[in-house]
Amino acid sequence: MKIGILFGGKSFEHEISIVSAISMKKVLKAELVYIFCDYNRDFYLIPTDKINSKRFSSGAYKKDKKLTLKNGGFFQKNMMSEKKIEFDIALNLSHGADGEDGKFASLLEFFEIPFIGPRVEASSMSCNKLFTKMYAKEFGVKTLDYKTLEKSSSRDIDLEYPVIVKPTRLGSSIGISILKNQEELDYALDVAFEFDTQVIIEPFIKGIKEYNLAGCKTDSYKFSIVEEPQKEEFLDFDKKYLDFSRTKRVNEAKLSDKMVEKLQIAFKKLYEPLFAGALIRCDFFVLEDEVYLNEINSVPGSMANYLFDDFNSTIIDLANFLPRCTKVSAQYKYINSIQAAKGK
Amino acid sequence: MKIGILFGGKSFEHEISIVSAISMKKVLKAELVYIFCDYNRDFYLIPTDKINSKRFSSGAYKKDKKLTLKNGGFFQKNMMSEKKIEFDIALNLSHGADGEDGKFASLLEFFEIPFIGPRVEASSMSCNKLFTKMYAKEFGVKTLDYKTLEKSSSRDIDLEYPVIVKPTRLGSSIGISILKNQEELDYALDVAFEFDTQVIIEPFIKGIKEYNLAGCKTDSYKFSIVEEPQKEEFLDFDKKYLDFSRTKRVNEAKLSDKMVEKLQIAFKKLYEPLFAGALIRCDFFVLEDEVYLNEINSVPGSMANYLFDDFNSTIIDLANFLPRCTKVSAQYKYINSIQAAKGK
Repeated sequence: MKIGILFGGKSFEHEISIVSAISMKKVLKAELVYIFCDYNRDFYLIPTDKINSKRFSSGAYKKDKKLTLKNGGFFQKNMMSEKKIEFDIALNLSHGADGEDGKFASLLEFFEIPFIGPRVEASSMSCNKLFTKMYAKEFGVKTLDYKTLEKSSSRDIDLEYPVIVKPTRLGSSIGISILKNQEELDYALDVAFEFDTQVIIEPFIKGIKEYNLAGCKTDSYKFSIVEEPQKEEFLDFDKKYLDFSRTKRVNEAKLSDKMVEKLQIAFKKLYEPLFAGALIRCDFFVLEDEVYLNEINSVPGSMANYLFDDFNSTIIDLANFLPRCTKVSAQYKYINSIQAAKGK
Repeated sequence: MKIGILFGGKSFEHEISIVSAISMKKVLKAELVYIFCDYNRDFYLIPTDKINSKRFSSGAYKKDKKLTLKNGGFFQKNMMSEKKIEFDIALNLSHGADGEDGKFASLLEFFEIPFIGPRVEASSMSCNKLFTKMYAKEFGVKTLDYKTLEKSSSRDIDLEYPVIVKPTRLGSSIGISILKNQEELDYALDVAFEFDTQVIIEPFIKGIKEYNLAGCKTDSYKFSIVEEPQKEEFLDFDKKYLDFSRTKRVNEAKLSDKMVEKLQIAFKKLYEPLFAGALIRCDFFVLEDEVYLNEINSVPGSMANYLFDDFNSTIIDLANFLPRCTKVSAQYKYINSIQAAKGK
């Protein structure tokens, strides 16, 4: 199997995507084709044997072959003709905007390129922390309480501190602050509003247990181990960034079978049918033995490869269970009947 | 102002989109450029003076100029060069799949073409009847009770008849049935599952009042009049189809000022900030003086022009209040710092 790794994008998480993409070389045994989307949203074919982070930061990638996205795939222009870049499926490995907000999903669906990754609806639902909460509630998974605030709203709000302030639509800890008191609110909001027009505010529960579980559904559910992420108060961007290049299997959290099952049940409630075709990582909280959803990573950093016993087989397996689009055939039944009625 | 009308798409509502698009010629005073997306998802430039429904049903449009979508716009290839199709803003006038499910929104956002229409998240939320209900609930607008059913689920369900069965993700009454009793369930589900993998089932309340209100927000809210759609039990596809070519102002529903205000309040709760940049039509039910949301049309048939006193000015006005994307500048801060740490 030949996999097209689609990465980059016009996103605050552009660099993380590059690190994620490079990590795939170590963990996927399939032949890889690297398709990079730069900050200008131009696509480039990056030679697999030459990929490294400096190629992007230095701008050297601009000498690589430029690609055009159109019906059926990515194309490379030669002197007189065009050549399609061949791969069996694409793997969406772009985090944040473009990759996780539904744009890449739309492009791939519109141009009919089969891919692993969240579809448009799944992207919209998991990329927005408010929508994720609505969605989890609807499907019977608890979440922490919250308030939302618009950029234009009054900041005169009553909160029980400590709280955590997050831009509604960003991942990777960007723009997030933990606030101990009211005095810190203004600055934290200024920071968060740099990245989004809406913020979400949650109670910050010191010492709350956090567990990450990744998985996907093929003929049955394929779950990763559960990890208890090692962290100080919470992971800032730098630490998460390093986290994203992990390719070694991590230690399993020490949990009872019953708690692992509880986490898997919550995962299943969230996964199907919305996330069909995607390998996602759900980050849960556990408080007094109850499971709460923190967030859904629809394109997890380095695909959470470090949580799987056999990541390579999981991906290959998933590639054979991608959702199909509803078939729409060309027809002009109504226009024809109107034309007929008019005697034309 | 020059407006690019983007219509068609690979959708069960493809024909409706054509009718909608043609109707714009009668109601928009701006210069129009017609960009058609056919069932194969190829784009064509249709001469404005020659547009008519037969051009599409006969396949004659295939002789029109083919366009390529890429960064900054739609391009027409000439012998040696490419020419950008010039317009100030695009108007997304494609209904159902592609137009209302977030794909066109994604393409336009990704390739940085300013447009009137729902953004990706707004599309996902309004295109899916289940998500619309979740969203309405979250923002304090009531909806009717419902059950959902997957294609693979058991059909052995208890319902209080009559009910109405709808595919979760389609508009324009396609695949919808009203059921008087249990015997009709199997057939209705077969029909609905032709169009989607999930259906939503609601009580069918005979004689419930339905009111449509369209609008958008520019410097303030611009509301249409409220219409009470004329209908038998409900509009089937044929009737809605004719409905979509309306260009004459309809009669205002006879409602108290207080009820109109109630509808407008519900509209505002739903509109902002999700639908910024779009002109939408909300279809409400009123039962015992209470307002319930039925559905949100994020690209309403013929843009609900027939509900506005001055549709042309509303569109021109909206064109000046489109939401801006969060600015993302190219940076390689983290990669550079890692390179520096490595001494490279």
